[in-house]
Amino acid sequence: MWSKTEVPGDAMAHPSGRLRKAPENFIDPAGVREVFVEAGRGRRDFVRKAFAAALGGAAAAGAMAQGNPVPAEGGDPNILELPEHSKGLGQPVATEGYGKPSKFEGNVQRRPSPGLTQTAQSSVSFAPLQSLFGIVTPSGLHFERHHQGWWDVDPSKHRLMINGSDDKMVKTPKVFTMDEIMRLPSVSRFHFIECGANSGMEWGNVAVPTVQYTHGMISCSEFTGVPLKILLDLCGVDYRRGRYVLAEGADGSSMTRTVPMELIESGEVFVAYGQNGEMLRPENGYPLRLVVPGVQGVSWVKYLRRIEVGDQPYGTKDEAVHYIDLMPDGQHRQYSSIQECKSVVTTPSGGQVLLDQGFYNISGLAWSGRGKVKKVDVSVDGGRNWRSARLEGPVMSKSLTRFNIDWVWNGKPALIQSRASDDTGYVQPSYKQLRAVRGTRSIYHNNSIQSWLVQESGEVKNVQLS
Amino acid sequence: MWSKTEVPGDAMAHPSGRLRKAPENFIDPAGVREVFVEAGRGRRDFVRKAFAAALGGAAAAGAMAQGNPVPAEGGDPNILELPEHSKGLGQPVATEGYGKPSKFEGNVQRRPSPGLTQTAQSSVSFAPLQSLFGIVTPSGLHFERHHQGWWDVDPSKHRLMINGSDDKMVKTPKVFTMDEIMRLPSVSRFHFIECGANSGMEWGNVAVPTVQYTHGMISCSEFTGVPLKILLDLCGVDYRRGRYVLAEGADGSSMTRTVPMELIESGEVFVAYGQNGEMLRPENGYPLRLVVPGVQGVSWVKYLRRIEVGDQPYGTKDEAVHYIDLMPDGQHRQYSSIQECKSVVTTPSGGQVLLDQGFYNISGLAWSGRGKVKKVDVSVDGGRNWRSARLEGPVMSKSLTRFNIDWVWNGKPALIQSRASDDTGYVQPSYKQLRAVRGTRSIYHNNSIQSWLVQESGEVKNVQLS
Repeated sequence: MWSKTEVPGDAMAHPSGRLRKAPENFIDPAGVREVFVEAGRGRRDFVRKAFAAALGGAAAAGAMAQGNPVPAEGGDPNILELPEHSKGLGQPVATEGYGKPSKFEGNVQRRPSPGLTQTAQSSVSFAPLQSLFGIVTPSGLHFERHHQGWWDVDPSKHRLMINGSDDKMVKTPKVFTMDEIMRLPSVSRFHFIECGANSGMEWGNVAVPTVQYTHGMISCSEFTGVPLKILLDLCGVDYRRGRYVLAEGADGSSMTRTVPMELIESGEVFVAYGQNGEMLRPENGYPLRLVVPGVQGVSWVKYLRRIEVGDQPYGTKDEAVHYIDLMPDGQHRQYSSIQECKSVVTTPSGGQVLLDQGFYNISGLAWSGRGKVKKVDVSVDGGRNWRSARLEGPVMSKSLTRFNIDWVWNGKPALIQSRASDDTGYVQPSYKQLRAVRGTRSIYHNNSIQSWLVQESGEVKNVQLS
Repeated sequence: MWSKTEVPGDAMAHPSGRLRKAPENFIDPAGVREVFVEAGRGRRDFVRKAFAAALGGAAAAGAMAQGNPVPAEGGDPNILELPEHSKGLGQPVATEGYGKPSKFEGNVQRRPSPGLTQTAQSSVSFAPLQSLFGIVTPSGLHFERHHQGWWDVDPSKHRLMINGSDDKMVKTPKVFTMDEIMRLPSVSRFHFIECGANSGMEWGNVAVPTVQYTHGMISCSEFTGVPLKILLDLCGVDYRRGRYVLAEGADGSSMTRTVPMELIESGEVFVAYGQNGEMLRPENGYPLRLVVPGVQGVSWVKYLRRIEVGDQPYGTKDEAVHYIDLMPDGQHRQYSSIQECKSVVTTPSGGQVLLDQGFYNISGLAWSGRGKVKKVDVSVDGGRNWRSARLEGPVMSKSLTRFNIDWVWNGKPALIQSRASDDTGYVQPSYKQLRAVRGTRSIYHNNSIQSWLVQESGEVKNVQLS
């Protein structure tokens, strides 16, 4: 399905985003003349050694003598020239408009997968995980998944209705305007959202080339909104009978999903209008979407227009026909909505190229739909040996967690994997373990360990271990 | 200095951003027919009452009967029409470019202050705090402060030099490329950055009209980068003698600031390339800036090109002439760089208009340059009575903290204030307390309590209490 030539150029992008056109420059070797590969010592010493003597060549020494780190380009390294930006008057402060990334980052973009769907309105655009840092996904790079395209819905006309499946389920059905919702008590929380089909291609042994395409249907944001429980309380819901709600979106796909009432009663589910400090983006459901932490993205209904309270699961098309797992015996597994514990190394990852031996910071993301990530182990030898990575704080429930770990590449083939576990004790499975239970015919809910092979050439590729 | 007509239209913007042109519509009263103002009962009941019967008018009832919350506009409320976005095929997934906010949010922008500085290259653009949620500032709305304009510096040519003030201070001076820095162990942390001059106009009893202009020189991001200690270790710094560093930027202003070595040894100071998941924005120092948590923004040197290690404070122009506090006795207070504990209510705030009595969610931001926010108290009667607000988690050290508290407005004048305290026990001062010590001639380091007066008309204005 994927050939090398189909890989978009920017798939090679280093996090800095600037080397995308020349994958052979993934790591710029300039100045690095001596590399230490033994990792036997303590980290600080070990890092120093990996750089020792490497950065003090003639040009650098000349530059340093003048107190200026920018030697003249292409000329005598001892003759220094100030760059224009160190002499001139720059750009003024913003007087209007909305800020944009550097022009040097222009190829850090979300990307659709060629041929994945029949129309671009019912499709996916993947987040460029290989170019991202930390846990916050910039809203301009948040993955997209639409069932009938996105709309920029006028918030002054948008309404949210809450009603019951029968006359007694909800005492006072109501219709809320956005202004009314935004007057109510609000919460702000960091959560990941992952499409149930994320990493879906891998079920069938299709090794898509980059982490953008293997895992790019996950993103993480700080969401702000009103707990759904507050809205239901305002309408007088009969919680004894009303054990499920149906959430319905306003776009043409009429997306509908059942959410169990206990998730709402826990206070975790909320209707969000804010994302990463500002209003939701149109392609992510502006002006209102449901946030169902830990549950697959399809339940986070966009353009949310209606909540119906009922006494049983609704079994709608989006849960009876789609987002179900085909098991080895031919039966379908329904309502498996929690995104289980999972992780992936984002640097180095498929499509990137390491030119030098020496020190690298291996970095990646871990998450669990059941709570907090407890530990992430990393192997560089295909699972024979594991070391625990550093988790960047704060480690939050049902949020992404960034991990980092030191590595010195000795130039030999290396098989890089990460394995997360969460605070329930659950451990991310291998492909072998997952397939033993689930077979290979599913599309959804693949949370197995990802393997990246660093070849002697430095090229990194996606490999599937049987 | 400020007259009503100088207030930009969008200063009135509700967080939803859509009512900016009609401040009288700050809260849309549609459908709210009955308002309960007594706050004597428990919150849930109280909120329900504030909305009771209000949202179930004829149009809504008709809409609900049809299971559709969008009644035909301007027509018979019982005849329903599906909006276009509920019938048609929407926009496709992104194939290129970088996502943008809704067109309905177009006026949520950073704004310069008319006449504040002589040139737009040495100026400020304020973040629209009245329109933001949670704690993450979208990078496209992050405040700007430049001393000689901003540049989009080519990261492949950018260098960071580390050297000593004499031959022995640093064993092996080095020049790092961006690629070399990005290979090193990284950290990701949430921190606020506040200009030392934030709220500076208020020293002289100038009540600027909106929170964007009173407090908009603060923003908060997740930063990613390499602890400066790791870089200094690589160069073999003599920490016994080297008790200070000088940080120098590459832009034409040659911004230079002294940073005490103990801050660096604590591991808190780092050189950042990432901000909110992606590379730094050009106006915020792309590709490399110093992050000095808790310290005023001027020390977070942008376009960072050099770190010099020395044995005493440098006393550069940016610390000897600028960013110093003029005390009542005519002496200057130097090196006062920590941003003390502070808070502000962002909704409701100056320039906004409340049209209805009834329930509101009062929301704001709190922070401390010394650690974590411990408590935020809110008063609606000018400080006679205080209630503790809810703090949204996670509460992180030297980061913004969002607070929320319920309020029912009874239509009478109300004086809204917030007062934060941090985990050192420090309590945010009143203007009176601050001026008793610092006088009124300073520009910098104003962290006193902000007062917003809600008038009977619903208009909110900035008032200064003597």
